[in-house]
Order: sequence, then C-alpha cells, then structure tokens
Amino acid sequence: MKGNLLIVHGGAPTAVINSSLYGAVTEAKKHPDQVDKVYGAIGGSGGMLREQFCELSAVPEEELRLLLQTPASAIGTSRDPLEAEDYANMARICKKHDIKYVLFNGGNGSMDACGKLYKACVAEGVDVRVVGIPKTIDNDIAVTDHAPGFGSAARYIAAITSEVSQDVRSLPIHVSVIEAMGRNAGWIAAASALARSGNGDGPDMIYLPERPFIEEEFLERVLELHRKKGGVVIVTSEGLCNPDGSSIVPPIFKVGRSVYYGDVSAHLANLVIQKLGIKARSEKPGICNRSSIAFQSSVDREEAVIAGAEACRAALNGENGVMVGFRRVPGPVYKSETFLIPVEQVMLHERKMPDEFISADGRDVTPAFVDWCRPLIGEELRRFVTFKPQL
Amino acid sequence: MKGNLLIVHGGAPTAVINSSLYGAVTEAKKHPDQVDKVYGAIGGSGGMLREQFCELSAVPEEELRLLLQTPASAIGTSRDPLEAEDYANMARICKKHDIKYVLFNGGNGSMDACGKLYKACVAEGVDVRVVGIPKTIDNDIAVTDHAPGFGSAARYIAAITSEVSQDVRSLPIHVSVIEAMGRNAGWIAAASALARSGNGDGPDMIYLPERPFIEEEFLERVLELHRKKGGVVIVTSEGLCNPDGSSIVPPIFKVGRSVYYGDVSAHLANLVIQKLGIKARSEKPGICNRSSIAFQSSVDREEAVIAGAEACRAALNGENGVMVGFRRVPGPVYKSETFLIPVEQVMLHERKMPDEFISADGRDVTPAFVDWCRPLIGEELRRFVTFKPQL
Repeated sequence: MKGNLLIVHGGAPTAVINSSLYGAVTEAKKHPDQVDKVYGAIGGSGGMLREQFCELSAVPEEELRLLLQTPASAIGTSRDPLEAEDYANMARICKKHDIKYVLFNGGNGSMDACGKLYKACVAEGVDVRVVGIPKTIDNDIAVTDHAPGFGSAARYIAAITSEVSQDVRSLPIHVSVIEAMGRNAGWIAAASALARSGNGDGPDMIYLPERPFIEEEFLERVLELHRKKGGVVIVTSEGLCNPDGSSIVPPIFKVGRSVYYGDVSAHLANLVIQKLGIKARSEKPGICNRSSIAFQSSVDREEAVIAGAEACRAALNGENGVMVGFRRVPGPVYKSETFLIPVEQVMLHERKMPDEFISADGRDVTPAFVDWCRPLIGEELRRFVTFKPQL
Repeated sequence: MKGNLLIVHGGAPTAVINSSLYGAVTEAKKHPDQVDKVYGAIGGSGGMLREQFCELSAVPEEELRLLLQTPASAIGTSRDPLEAEDYANMARICKKHDIKYVLFNGGNGSMDACGKLYKACVAEGVDVRVVGIPKTIDNDIAVTDHAPGFGSAARYIAAITSEVSQDVRSLPIHVSVIEAMGRNAGWIAAASALARSGNGDGPDMIYLPERPFIEEEFLERVLELHRKKGGVVIVTSEGLCNPDGSSIVPPIFKVGRSVYYGDVSAHLANLVIQKLGIKARSEKPGICNRSSIAFQSSVDREEAVIAGAEACRAALNGENGVMVGFRRVPGPVYKSETFLIPVEQVMLHERKMPDEFISADGRDVTPAFVDWCRPLIGEELRRFVTFKPQL
C-alpha cells in the first residue's frame, strides 16, 4: 500500500513532541516504496479538518534536526473538541489527499481521536492506517510504563527544586512553594524528590493530588519545619483537592474541557502568611515546566524519537488502531522497549500515582518511586557546593 | 600589611555570586605575602557578627570550581538590618580574627553596609580595608554600566519567553503573562525582548515599572492582539504601579524592608479573564529567575569572577571604601573593563531604565536597549524551527 503519511499533534505540547515528529519523518523517508510524501497537519486536528498541511519530507535534514531542540509543537496543535461528523470528514480528507497513514501524537484525548478516526475510516470504506504516538507531561497515559514528555517535565522540576532549595537554604527567611504541572496526577510534583540526589538538598514536603489536602495538618507541618530549618521548600501539584474531592482553590474560568483555577502555590503561600505569620512566596513556572529545552531529558528525547519512528513502522507494517507504548527491560541498568497497545485500552483512562510510590504520611514519595523515576530524567543533575561554619 | 581576608555576602543571591566568590578566593591565594587565610562569613553580615566563618583557602581547587555552577550563596547570605553598634562590633571582630581585608558582595544595601563598616573601622582605629563586589539581578546599582547577576537573570527571561512564546503560538488558545523579577526597575522584564533574536517569536508587550499601568489601555491592547494572533505573550515586571504610584496589587505581608505583594502576573491574567472573557494564565518562575544555572550567562559568569578578583586586588593595593564597577570599552565588539567607584556614590541609589531604552508607547523597549543588553546574556539563544501551511 503506497500513499502519503500525515502526522497530527493533539493537546498541550511537551519538550519532546517535536523529537517524535523528527523520528516519524526520518523513518517515513526510509520507505519510499510505501510513503510518497510526509505531511504535517498545521494546527492539530483542526488544521487537518481545514486541510492545512505542510510537506515535511521536503524539509532539509539540517532544518529537520532543529526539531530536536525546538519546544512546543513546530506544526502547531489544538484542543478543539471533535464531533462524529468531524471524523467522517477526516476520513474523506485522507481519501482526497491520498493519505494512507495517519500518526496521531497526543495524550489520552488524542488517543480517543485516534480510535474514532480509525473506526470512521472503516465505516467510510477508506483504507487508512491510524497509529498513536504517546505524549504527555503528566504521565497519565494508561498501560505504558511512561510516555515521552514526562521525563523532561520531571527533570525540569527536579532541577529547579534543587536550585530553589539552594537559594532558600542560603537565605533562610521564608517558605517557598513551588507549583508543578499535573492537575489530577502527581507524577511531576513527585519527581522533585530527585532534587535530593545531587547534594542532599531538596523539597521538605511534596503535595500530590492523589492524597486529600488537610489545611490544619499542612500548617502544623510547615510550622514545625520552619522552627527547625528557617527556610522551607514545598513542592505541590497544581491540582490539590479537599477530602470531599473539591479543589482547594475555586475555579475562576471554565471553557469546554478546560477549567482555570487560581494558583495552588499562591494559595498555600497565603495560608502560611495569614495563618502562621511566616513569610512565604510561590514559584509557579507554569508553561516553562513543559517547554524548557535546557532541561530536556536526553533519555526522554531519545525515546520520543523512537516512539515516532516505531509508530511509523507499525503503520507501514499494517497495524491499525494501536498506540506505541514503553516497558522496561528487566536488569540492573535502565533499558526500555516499545510494544503496541490497542488504543481502546488507553482511550481516556487516566493513570495516577500508585500507593507504593507515595510515602505513608502522604507528603513525600517512596524510594521505589525514586528508583522508577531516576533513569527517565537523563543525566545526573549538576552538583552544588555549600560551606558550613568551621571556626 | 598581612592578615586574613573575609568575604561576606549580602542580600538575595544570584546565579553568579558564587563565581565572584571563586574569583576572590583564587586571587587571594595568589598573594601569600599579604593574605594569610581566606574566610567566608557563613550567613552574611549576621554570620560575621556571630563569628561563623569557614576557611575557604583550605578548600581543594576541585571543590572550589563547583562554585562556578552552584546557584545561590554557597556561604549563605542575609538581609538582617544592621545598627550602628553592629558595625563597631564588626570592626572589633576583624581585629580579634586578624582580618585585614573585608570584601562585601552585594547590592545597594550591602554597599551601604560596606561604607558604614569602612567608617566604623576608621572610628575604632582598626586597620581594615573594605571593598565592595557588585551583585544584583535587578541591575539597579548606580554608576556601574551593569553588575554581575543581571546578565544571567536577563538570559533566563529571554530564554523562557522564547520557549513560552513557542508554546503559545503552537497552541494559540490563551494569553500568557510571564512575571519577571525586578520590583522598582524593569531591566529584567525588558531583557525578554531578546527572545526575538532567535526566530522572531517573542513577547507581544513588555510592561515596566518605569511607566504607569493604565488598566483600560492594557485591556484594549490585549483585545486587539488576541483578535489578531489568538495567542498573546506579555512579560511584566513584578512591580507595576498605578499612575498615582500605588502598586496595582495590594501588599499582603510586610516585614521590615520587605513587602510581599500578590502576583502581578496573576492579577493581569485575571483582568483578561474577568473583563475580556479571554482565557489567560500566568507563569511566575519567581526565584528560578535568579537561581537558574542552566541559563547562567557565560559573560556574566566571567565578569563575576573578574569582579571578585578585582575587589581582592584593590583591597591588597590599599584601596578602601570602594566598589568594583564595569564600563564598556568603545568598539564594535563587546568588551568591558573594571574601575573603582567610591561606595558613597552607589550607596542606596536605585538605578532605573532610562527613557531612551523604553519605546514611545511605553509597552516595549527600544533597539538601543536591545543593543545594550545583547552581549550581557552570553551565547545566542537556541534556534527553533516552525512550519507553516503550504498546501
């Protein structure tokens, strides 16, 4: 089967989604017998519906390689909700442009779209193979051990927590609350524990959405830490909830699937100020958490390239309605391998931190989590030096 | 004159204050005829008063070199307000520990302390030479062209604005407001303009504390940009004021010289949401702005080492009550040289952005600022790639 191959990006970008794009385009160009042109949909599924394409197979290798160090999505992405007729239209667009292979790069929502397009193509009698490339910073995609995007977001939080801790310990006059991305799953916030690997300095507490937030308990712990250490560093996920499941900060804006809340970190810092009278501040890097190339994990980037290439190979091999997943090869040194997962197994299932990765008091992670997470962030963090009084 | 040399850090840390420490220690060790031991005061001027010292001249070179990549202050720092008797005590402590040279590394407040210690030593009849090493992320120290710490903070903002812009343009569904450090002077926020140097993508507007904030005008501009581009990126300094000089956000906590305000970026994002009904979010990296080693500017680091070494040499040469400053050597390629400034010329004078560096509409910088700032951020920012619709 010969035809064009289309790559579509969905949802929020990551530091390595373009690396998967690089892997997919590079692989596709190796198969001129099956792939005519490689297209990118400009602006996600919306761009596909508007038939806005660019020809990636015509891009010089030198420029293509810049994808490995370009954050966000070089072909754009979207979060447009799709209707049943949109999928039928996509199937017809594939036919019109002789697109025989579609690679959907995205998270849970995009895998849902992937599955629906696959079914729409069958229903429309259009011969198209649809394969998913996993992408998430939140690490909330089911079945796969982890997915491209998470390792870099994890490295980002570990590195900045290490730096902010160094700052707070050198000028121990306040409580600093760092906000990590991840509204429903605490994987990124949890990765801040890796800040401790360098020189022992790291977060004093880690608040995860998998555990209910109890204000009195939080304030007691902060007070105790402040008395003991002066400067205190807390990392929190952006989506903490009360024991009844409601957000600890009220929503300020709602549009479709997106809900905007006030900042959890600012809320916690204000609690410390107002209820304990202790200086506190918040650091909310926000989008930097997913778009920083300086903190891109080398392991994450390599796996992203592999995921793109594997998805391309799978489609060319006749696979359909599957997503590329990663699993670990048992052994003392980290090694991963890919496998294919039927998209219906991942569609809209949200994966949270398992109990064995969360400490008994619910305010930290376990050594098992640290062991699991460490290889994903790539090279070791920079080593710092601190001097103590001697005389 | 032979004796010990003491280095004291004051105020908030930067990404290169430890580089100045490295420069000072390394230089001091070259003069065994004048310098016996090199001490670091652990915990700033408070640490000096508590006589908490560590012997930096005994630290192995390998460990000392880690200072060049260690953020914050490796010997701690403080913001304790000092009384007249504290300076007299410091003079006596110098005598007691045979300290003949004191290098104060800090900003405007520390240069004030530097001048007062110099006078107290004269009054107490203690033969001590006191020299200042400039340090600021805000670039608000008078007389010097710029000072160590600013170049790295500037590089940080330029790089993350470039990355966030890439993210927002690839998923143009909201207005993003990035908050830069710098409460009274807009130098850091202004440096975000350098994000445009890579591939044309950068901030759409830059809000500086040197210009009054007018809400209606802000909302009009955002609405117009949103209509035109979808995604909008705004960089703001953390200290915007109304035309009457009051902060646009109310203070939430005051202690001594420190006042804590709500976040300006969150306030602006909420204005966009509530008054325009447009999705908006804020990114406030906070302390990351001054503590990121990944975004350390190589030029800034080198100048920081030079500032430390020069301060040491000045003290050994008999200078007293002076601070090391930087000025540019005229010519087509950036080159700086140091000179000595009497501390009374810099003490507590706050330097703001001059009019010629601010655009006529007050919401951006001029090409003259970009030319002035560019060499200070070190190597060029990473180049990104973006594809547009072709078919």
